[in-house]
Amino acid sequence: MTSSVDFGSPVRLRAVSADGQPAVTPALEELYRGFERQLLVPLWTEIGDLMPVHPRSRALPHLWRWADLRALAARAGELVPVGRGGERRAIALANPGLGGRPFATPTLWAAIQYLMPAEDAPEHRHTQHAFRFVIEGAGVWTVVDGDPVAMRRGDFLPQAGWHWHAHHNATAEPMAWIDGLDIPFQYVTEAQFFEPGRDRLSDTERTTPARSRAERLWGHPGLRPLAATAAAAAAGSPLLAYRWEHTDRALSDQLALEAEGYGGTVEPGHAAVRYANPATGGDVLSTIRVEMHRIARGAQTSPVRETGSSVCAVFDGSGTVSVGDTTWSVTRGDLFVVPSWQPFSARSEAGATDSDSGALDLFRFSDSPVFEALRLDRRETVP
Amino acid sequence: MTSSVDFGSPVRLRAVSADGQPAVTPALEELYRGFERQLLVPLWTEIGDLMPVHPRSRALPHLWRWADLRALAARAGELVPVGRGGERRAIALANPGLGGRPFATPTLWAAIQYLMPAEDAPEHRHTQHAFRFVIEGAGVWTVVDGDPVAMRRGDFLPQAGWHWHAHHNATAEPMAWIDGLDIPFQYVTEAQFFEPGRDRLSDTERTTPARSRAERLWGHPGLRPLAATAAAAAAGSPLLAYRWEHTDRALSDQLALEAEGYGGTVEPGHAAVRYANPATGGDVLSTIRVEMHRIARGAQTSPVRETGSSVCAVFDGSGTVSVGDTTWSVTRGDLFVVPSWQPFSARSEAGATDSDSGALDLFRFSDSPVFEALRLDRRETVP
Amino acid sequence: MTSSVDFGSPVRLRAVSADGQPAVTPALEELYRGFERQLLVPLWTEIGDLMPVHPRSRALPHLWRWADLRALAARAGELVPVGRGGERRAIALANPGLGGRPFATPTLWAAIQYLMPAEDAPEHRHTQHAFRFVIEGAGVWTVVDGDPVAMRRGDFLPQAGWHWHAHHNATAEPMAWIDGLDIPFQYVTEAQFFEPGRDRLSDTERTTPARSRAERLWGHPGLRPLAATAAAAAAGSPLLAYRWEHTDRALSDQLALEAEGYGGTVEPGHAAVRYANPATGGDVLSTIRVEMHRIARGAQTSPVRETGSSVCAVFDGSGTVSVGDTTWSVTRGDLFVVPSWQPFSARSEAGATDSDSGALDLFRFSDSPVFEALRLDRRETVP
Amino acid sequence: MTSSVDFGSPVRLRAVSADGQPAVTPALEELYRGFERQLLVPLWTEIGDLMPVHPRSRALPHLWRWADLRALAARAGELVPVGRGGERRAIALANPGLGGRPFATPTLWAAIQYLMPAEDAPEHRHTQHAFRFVIEGAGVWTVVDGDPVAMRRGDFLPQAGWHWHAHHNATAEPMAWIDGLDIPFQYVTEAQFFEPGRDRLSDTERTTPARSRAERLWGHPGLRPLAATAAAAAAGSPLLAYRWEHTDRALSDQLALEAEGYGGTVEPGHAAVRYANPATGGDVLSTIRVEMHRIARGAQTSPVRETGSSVCAVFDGSGTVSVGDTTWSVTRGDLFVVPSWQPFSARSEAGATDSDSGALDLFRFSDSPVFEALRLDRRETVP
Repeated sequence: MTSSVDFGSPVRLRAVSADGQPAVTPALEELYRGFERQLLVPLWTEIGDLMPVHPRSRALPHLWRWADLRALAARAGELVPVGRGGERRAIALANPGLGGRPFATPTLWAAIQYLMPAEDAPEHRHTQHAFRFVIEGAGVWTVVDGDPVAMRRGDFLPQAGWHWHAHHNATAEPMAWIDGLDIPFQYVTEAQFFEPGRDRLSDTERTTPARSRAERLWGHPGLRPLAATAAAAAAGSPLLAYRWEHTDRALSDQLALEAEGYGGTVEPGHAAVRYANPATGGDVLSTIRVEMHRIARGAQTSPVRETGSSVCAVFDGSGTVSVGDTTWSVTRGDLFVVPSWQPFSARSEAGATDSDSGALDLFRFSDSPVFEALRLDRRETVP
Repeated sequence: MTSSVDFGSPVRLRAVSADGQPAVTPALEELYRGFERQLLVPLWTEIGDLMPVHPRSRALPHLWRWADLRALAARAGELVPVGRGGERRAIALANPGLGGRPFATPTLWAAIQYLMPAEDAPEHRHTQHAFRFVIEGAGVWTVVDGDPVAMRRGDFLPQAGWHWHAHHNATAEPMAWIDGLDIPFQYVTEAQFFEPGRDRLSDTERTTPARSRAERLWGHPGLRPLAATAAAAAAGSPLLAYRWEHTDRALSDQLALEAEGYGGTVEPGHAAVRYANPATGGDVLSTIRVEMHRIARGAQTSPVRETGSSVCAVFDGSGTVSVGDTTWSVTRGDLFVVPSWQPFSARSEAGATDSDSGALDLFRFSDSPVFEALRLDRRETVP
Repeated sequence: MTSSVDFGSPVRLRAVSADGQPAVTPALEELYRGFERQLLVPLWTEIGDLMPVHPRSRALPHLWRWADLRALAARAGELVPVGRGGERRAIALANPGLGGRPFATPTLWAAIQYLMPAEDAPEHRHTQHAFRFVIEGAGVWTVVDGDPVAMRRGDFLPQAGWHWHAHHNATAEPMAWIDGLDIPFQYVTEAQFFEPGRDRLSDTERTTPARSRAERLWGHPGLRPLAATAAAAAAGSPLLAYRWEHTDRALSDQLALEAEGYGGTVEPGHAAVRYANPATGGDVLSTIRVEMHRIARGAQTSPVRETGSSVCAVFDGSGTVSVGDTTWSVTRGDLFVVPSWQPFSARSEAGATDSDSGALDLFRFSDSPVFEALRLDRRETVP
Repeated sequence: MTSSVDFGSPVRLRAVSADGQPAVTPALEELYRGFERQLLVPLWTEIGDLMPVHPRSRALPHLWRWADLRALAARAGELVPVGRGGERRAIALANPGLGGRPFATPTLWAAIQYLMPAEDAPEHRHTQHAFRFVIEGAGVWTVVDGDPVAMRRGDFLPQAGWHWHAHHNATAEPMAWIDGLDIPFQYVTEAQFFEPGRDRLSDTERTTPARSRAERLWGHPGLRPLAATAAAAAAGSPLLAYRWEHTDRALSDQLALEAEGYGGTVEPGHAAVRYANPATGGDVLSTIRVEMHRIARGAQTSPVRETGSSVCAVFDGSGTVSVGDTTWSVTRGDLFVVPSWQPFSARSEAGATDSDSGALDLFRFSDSPVFEALRLDRRETVP
């Protein structure tokens, strides 16, 4: 059953003859006019849309090609200045099922951001949780609460809400990266605060250290600084960069353990790590889960569906991914969305791959922490 | 700044001359056409809408009069049968800011439900968390997992997701009550599951005990049954009815303590209790907070605003309530919404009150547990 | 293997010829002398005592008769004044396996306390968690942070650490009750603080209200006062009295539900409730669990053993209890201890019972919260 | 006031004339004889011992010199075989205040363990939580649940309770290290289980990989394997080795940050890290906290006292440490105890130091997690 409400405002109701609906009579029509006047809508006409037997996402599976994104971002680099007001040269994926809004899924924002040589993006802070992930290139430092953090290919940089941040490109080359945020979730729940900061960073903040202060405090495995307060890490990770060398090694270790006959992988040929808040062991951000998956050459993941949505980016390699009834061949940088309760699987395939190992490396972020915190999570392997 | 996107699908962008926007040139227009073709939307045209300095709710403050709701519900009782498919004779508040949808706020559903003499509402279960609150009348038993639970004026009956439930009216009178659910929240996050149950309850389930089995197990203050498993209470309270006599006494006790010179009230003349899950001490439902407030005759609450939205029902008494810039005189059964970050206060006033004490009793439910679980809650007293 | 160390101080070691022990030679003797000089003890002589295959408690099962306790307490009432320094007229159970110390078990203190007509016990506070449970009589008010709390037969009164408290007998009769504390646990872990308070309460504090302020705020089932802070309830329950009428009814309800064919009891004929902190749903005190068990006439509990120790008091009825290899016939007021990992079961038996129902009501407290917090809990039903 | 009980068994009481004590009369003597017969002890004679105004530890500050420990352990290596029954060649510190028992503090065990060339210590498991810390040398692999874990100078190896473990020395040199366990705590609470395992490891388990499987899964900063279950990490860290190179770098980073003008150290010149469970961010073991402190050349820590006890080992450098009224000059390998509520401070001093930096590196373990879990922790800086 689809909705019989005409979703203009104010309420307009249409009596229809259908199973489970009351007989259409002049009296019923009059009742519905009464509902309209009083801004009321009956459950019995809407229940099929509002309470389906399982989630039927308004979002559609969709793929964006990195080459297209990259080209348009570069062109925006020439035409659109970065500064106060627009704040960021970020271009967002607009899911074709979500009415032209810049929402990759009902809860997640995904964008390509682009910074020209020597360019700065001004400081601000917002309650939206954010991260940056680098598909290619290097040279931009993001400055979080005054701490400059280098960005390089494969690095993941979480940014918990309400921390000041700015970016500066310290090189003579432009740089592009992927932004992920919970903008749609905070938009629908109406939780957002935003505050502009200084227009320009200090010289100290514009330095380019190889390691951030956050990494020097929190980047040592299994060790936490005694001086850190618990409160500091409440809504997100105090570790501001997760470097590719560690992620790569962790994934390689899992596949090597599997080859030696031990556990460690999710399933045969499928290694995966979750980026964790070292202060809690939990998700890096209170509303966004982030993971890196490596599917060994020729391996395939079991189809799984779960409540909530996710966005994936191909970090390396080539392969085939299936979302619901849709299948795509993908390669480095391609982005796609997995709507709620749609089965997802991926296969690594020979091809013009960029990866030495022949593996398909998939970066994935989702709204799972929201579902788990509220006990709305369900997950199943599809036969 | 409001959005410049035309929210039809697919993406349509309009270049505008404005502060913080790039110069409108043929090249920019061409870039925007490229965005449209690739289903992309830039941040710089949307940021004002998506990332406001504080929440600006799409929902509007609005008041529904009990007399109107009651009359339309009674008329629906005559015209609309209750049965499988439509499931419930529930008529929902449609916030005038939310496009005619049956959403009281962006996350909360509020409805009046109506059951005719000897009528049954069929069994089903759903992941949406729900509760019933009785403004007037008695005579319906809700049967949760086979346990018949009486409903009487002032009773609050939580119903955690995915438990079977049906209703039956055991009297010769119709009965109306208020339903609250997280339907809009689960709709936007796409978490919903629904399953129809049996069309008719057994005779045992249609009995009318004064106390439910849930109350006999969990309704003793400070005592929990040893046999209960922790899992049983995970997503919501195992106590299926919170009786008015207890709520009333708790509120009276707070005001009496205040009169004796002790703490206990929220502020002078303002008593309040939160319905709690006795297994955890936390909210009765993982997505909905429910409270009862009593404002003593002539007292007034301090204006407070917080992230997230709420719906209030006047249980007893008369008074004046203010939401944002709007003020209404309210009396028994009236319902109104408080959108995110809009200041709210209430004053108890002499009038044709139903309350012996002259107090204004306000029943309130909100989406605060969502915000607290995700650390998105903010709250402040407005000067 | 038992220890070969002579536990005087300093270290004295004795080389013995035994399985798993090194050959006794002059060189070994010399090595052991070296250990003694350096204050060292080898594991290999002690491991059997320190690391047994399962807990072998030093405490012994033991029973104290209420009649004996009562008589000695009454005599102490005549001979021993209550005042600053001695603080309380409390007489503690000294487990025969624990070297004459006033420890009922290695972690728990249990005592009979006695207050003469019009007598006061002075105010103090300590980090030890405490409770009072009334076997018989009434007439004393305990005053906790200035709040007078009545004590009557069957009432349970928890007293979280570091709150001021005093007692006053408002009647012309002496009164006795049971004290439970974690004195031995805090003694061995060395966590104790103590502070004397005022020598005499104010007149207001010496009033005798039927309900305490704590009950008026926290004694309503499933309702919590909005004004309460989370911190207030951190280490123990804010509800200062759990009245017998509620406990009795909760137990009766469980047995009635069982009789009607529903769940609710622990096992056939065995009802039980745990006193819970209404602010958390967890144990009333961070180191002590407290429960009331009702064993219906003729019923018997399954033998269970668990890590940690407990003390039981017969509140009503008669029966037989077994602890390890020991069995006693018990009646009202008798107290006994269950050492760690010793099987325990109880049977209700016809006899000169005080109980209308013929049931055996057992009050029980244990150190289980310590074990659960540290994940050292194990529990099994003994075949 | 000290105890007037003669702590032989059974109870013996002595009436004394003292403040706060009842008058010594024949009647009182008779009452005390009655207490003795009934195994009762009054509070009023014991309160000063049991409920002091602050913790007065039975344990004494004491220092053991590494040279002495090392020499006696080496001699034991010649005289005492390792095998089933004795299980380990471990020699424990016996605090002079604790009656000759092998308890470093009332809750903690500390020992030197010694393994001869090619020697094996047999497999077993126990509920006691344990760790190993290496002051000098290398060459032993501890095999935990079949996973061989190398041990080298500076490495910390936690061993959560109830996991199988054995050790084998793969070199031609003996090796010594420090063992820490919660043996005394589990002894007094009577929580212990022990189970012998296989007498000999398989050849695969006797290999000598540079990295353990645990490190390959869990040793990557901020990354957790998706395949790991939450349960696996419940009572202790799944990471079985914390390598010195990481600890050293983390401490150096903190001091460097301080030198650059940023936070990170505990106080000037005092860097410190806590070994954390990467699955939770909390303590590595549910009953033991472990930290490494670095006090820069010439720096001094503020005197601090806290509830609970700790054991420290000098890992590197030289200095002076104060515990209560006692002060010692210490150097590499020296071990000392800090009893509950005794102030502790340390100063790094020039000397025949082994450390390049001139810093004093102090390894420290304590029972703080017990106190925090039960909310018995107190801590203050001593003026």
